[in-house]
Amino acid sequence: MQEKLNLLKEKMATIWDLSMIGALMGWDQQTYMPPKGAEERGEQMATLSRLVHEMATSDEMGKLLDELVPYAQTLDPDSDDARLIKLAKREYDKQTRVPAEKVAEYARVTTMAQGAWVQARSESNFGLFQPHLERIVELRREYASYFAPYDHVYDPLLDDFEPGLKTAEVQQIFARLRPQQVELIQAIASRPQVDDSFLHLKYDDKKQWDFGVEVATRFGYDWQAGRQDRSAHPFTTSFGIRDVRITTRVIEDQLPSALFGTMHETGHALYQQGIDWKYRRSVLGGAASLAVHESQSRMWENLVGRSRAFWRFFYPRLQEYFPQQLGNVSLEAFYKAINKVEPSFIRVEADEATYNLHIMLRLELEIALMEGSLEVKHLPEAWNTRMKEYLGIIPPNDSLGVLQDIHWSGGMIGYFPTYALGNLISVQLWEKIQQDIPNLEEQIERGEFSALLGWLREKIHRHGSKYEPQELVEKVTGSKIDPQPYIRYLNTKYRDIYGF
Amino acid sequence: MQEKLNLLKEKMATIWDLSMIGALMGWDQQTYMPPKGAEERGEQMATLSRLVHEMATSDEMGKLLDELVPYAQTLDPDSDDARLIKLAKREYDKQTRVPAEKVAEYARVTTMAQGAWVQARSESNFGLFQPHLERIVELRREYASYFAPYDHVYDPLLDDFEPGLKTAEVQQIFARLRPQQVELIQAIASRPQVDDSFLHLKYDDKKQWDFGVEVATRFGYDWQAGRQDRSAHPFTTSFGIRDVRITTRVIEDQLPSALFGTMHETGHALYQQGIDWKYRRSVLGGAASLAVHESQSRMWENLVGRSRAFWRFFYPRLQEYFPQQLGNVSLEAFYKAINKVEPSFIRVEADEATYNLHIMLRLELEIALMEGSLEVKHLPEAWNTRMKEYLGIIPPNDSLGVLQDIHWSGGMIGYFPTYALGNLISVQLWEKIQQDIPNLEEQIERGEFSALLGWLREKIHRHGSKYEPQELVEKVTGSKIDPQPYIRYLNTKYRDIYGF
Repeated sequence: MQEKLNLLKEKMATIWDLSMIGALMGWDQQTYMPPKGAEERGEQMATLSRLVHEMATSDEMGKLLDELVPYAQTLDPDSDDARLIKLAKREYDKQTRVPAEKVAEYARVTTMAQGAWVQARSESNFGLFQPHLERIVELRREYASYFAPYDHVYDPLLDDFEPGLKTAEVQQIFARLRPQQVELIQAIASRPQVDDSFLHLKYDDKKQWDFGVEVATRFGYDWQAGRQDRSAHPFTTSFGIRDVRITTRVIEDQLPSALFGTMHETGHALYQQGIDWKYRRSVLGGAASLAVHESQSRMWENLVGRSRAFWRFFYPRLQEYFPQQLGNVSLEAFYKAINKVEPSFIRVEADEATYNLHIMLRLELEIALMEGSLEVKHLPEAWNTRMKEYLGIIPPNDSLGVLQDIHWSGGMIGYFPTYALGNLISVQLWEKIQQDIPNLEEQIERGEFSALLGWLREKIHRHGSKYEPQELVEKVTGSKIDPQPYIRYLNTKYRDIYGF
Repeated sequence: MQEKLNLLKEKMATIWDLSMIGALMGWDQQTYMPPKGAEERGEQMATLSRLVHEMATSDEMGKLLDELVPYAQTLDPDSDDARLIKLAKREYDKQTRVPAEKVAEYARVTTMAQGAWVQARSESNFGLFQPHLERIVELRREYASYFAPYDHVYDPLLDDFEPGLKTAEVQQIFARLRPQQVELIQAIASRPQVDDSFLHLKYDDKKQWDFGVEVATRFGYDWQAGRQDRSAHPFTTSFGIRDVRITTRVIEDQLPSALFGTMHETGHALYQQGIDWKYRRSVLGGAASLAVHESQSRMWENLVGRSRAFWRFFYPRLQEYFPQQLGNVSLEAFYKAINKVEPSFIRVEADEATYNLHIMLRLELEIALMEGSLEVKHLPEAWNTRMKEYLGIIPPNDSLGVLQDIHWSGGMIGYFPTYALGNLISVQLWEKIQQDIPNLEEQIERGEFSALLGWLREKIHRHGSKYEPQELVEKVTGSKIDPQPYIRYLNTKYRDIYGF
């Protein structure tokens, strides 16, 4: 049986290598590829995907797993081998249950839909996108049906991003979160506004870049195992555990953009760089889930990067970079500005206090679409109603509303909740870290992050994708994903800033 | 049969796509990959190579070719389909005749040898490299044996780089070339030296880069289908016909390095960008041979880039970039400096008049090694004897002599002659171009290159790898590879510069 297991590992290593190669192609496409290279690159991507799919769904793979799954049940369920077989089986099922012609149709439909979405958004014309989204919703419901029986039609979609998590769990979490966040925002709205105009002066591109590099270096990002480049939308990607790259976008009159973007991507990258080397080239060498990934990026961006302690150390440095713009701005004024709360239309620009509400709105709409209780044609109306209810504002057009995100056009229904769950997990971990490292704040004030990173490495990073997200969070914090710590965090932080 | 041909094309497209992906991985490795990424990248490269090899040597491929080769003989031998089948069969034979364990051994031996060569060169200790080279020579002779019968044991090696070319042909060409080049160099040596000291002042890195970009743009390099990056050794690579990238290396006190390096790589890139789009993703979408490729790079670097006409246009521009360094240097003094002839030890730094002699020396030694008339242990001595005979100088140590090039350590025996043949072909083409574009020099003086590029596109580039090198040269110039034009060119140029 050991021989069969080795064969499985070998096959998975090949698939892994090809996925990493695909990631390199994607990185190049978004950073350096000349425009005319797109067509041939597309053909090459298709060839690679086809080969990976053939390998991952081969009869040989199926037979191997048929023999290994019962064998796994004889092993310690927490052993690497048992987990590896379980994950391999999971992947195999995901890839084989859906008929090939459906996979191909989905690829065609979403490719078309993305083009239509770009146009619809630029013209703020939902009608152009509507038929595409209708077909996508149908296909996603069909997709779910291949994984029946399920508790909820949304479960199979969610499971693609958050292994093991159920719709009911997410709904419960959000039901507890929503009223408290809405209440908080209303309290803030009644207080005087914070001035953040100085964040929108002209900040030299190169200096912004250099400051970001300094921060990432301090955080512990290993530049010998990664690099930073520019791209239109910031992202993190990896071609192995020791080649984890980040990108950033510098906007000269928006200091927060590159600043927090770099911290965010560095958070993702630290996770990837911290995965145990022994898991490389295997299905255990990924991350636990998107939400856990997001908990890392949001922790470094918000819990560290938007804290007073952090800026006690870094603000004098930032002032050295930008004496003209910030020389006369106090630390306190700067701290308040980067934490300004303001209900706004666009999710990716939202502050910590309002962000999750953007997500809840999307989750509710996605579930309603999947359940069939909401028709696509009524989506803009449903969007605006909820915006009014949660954030008190109504988008003036659909570009600033229902058409703002790319996700649905790519068929990614089930993805949005991971953003909010990441926020929640980040603070759950943070409370535990504060217990384990009592002088954490003092360390941060001295620009020291090695104990924090060490904790994350030990508790989260090194495990790769061995544990499911709920399992990992419980293992580390003692409870499953829980909104209470996040609520506590927001209340403490904003009562202080807004004085109520 | 059409169905079978389509199946072959499909299979070759897949192999082609994977090779292009491999090229992207190689480019990234030499430009941006962080150092710690090397190990995983190596594993990924090995996986990709293995898959390509499996596909290229599969039984199915063999059977397809068994049916298609006779069919090709019923087609017009100049048709694309006939050529494609011929080339596919050639590739298949190359990859299947050598037993897999020999291929693996060769990979192991050359990997070890490259490490040993690096050390041997840095210590100038041939003894460290000798046992590795001995094994490589044995393996290359064995390799040749799989392609028996042949006219000469060197033929199968040469054929890997120059399809269809025979050792006897190359020997004949070089036998005619050598005495005339030696004579020319002796004549130049008796004349007063040219001053080129001003080429070694400090030239700003960024300005050198910008000037190179300006020249490449004028030549007609399509930046929408390529880009330039930095690397330790300049190279050109492509991931399709519309993604052809060049790299350069800027050395602040060596103006000619980036200047002519960029023109050289642009020459290679123009070839790749000019291949007919219909040949993409097929074995016809490459180049005719390394020598034909080199004819393009050397043409733009030397026949264009080291000409008076070129500098009549560009020298005032260069002076604007570097007024301090070149403001008081006349066009004529500059022209002579960049064409200075001086026998030197290192091939890659050699001028046009001495370059081919470096190659002939290597070719003679390679042939002697393969024939068994020279033992590896006597190689340094044989090297130095020829250096004295051809160039009148003896390297003070083996680092500046027999250990200077990486090629042999990688098993690349048969590669060197392509450099010299490229020089010869470039002038053969040039003589023809001058007939076809009578006012070419005037165009160049005006910085206009579109007629020249158009000619090359029509006669050379668009054909991809459809024709073998001798066939292509004959088709375009009316004769096979011929050293006489090159001799005429050198004599005319250097008699003028050195006044004899």
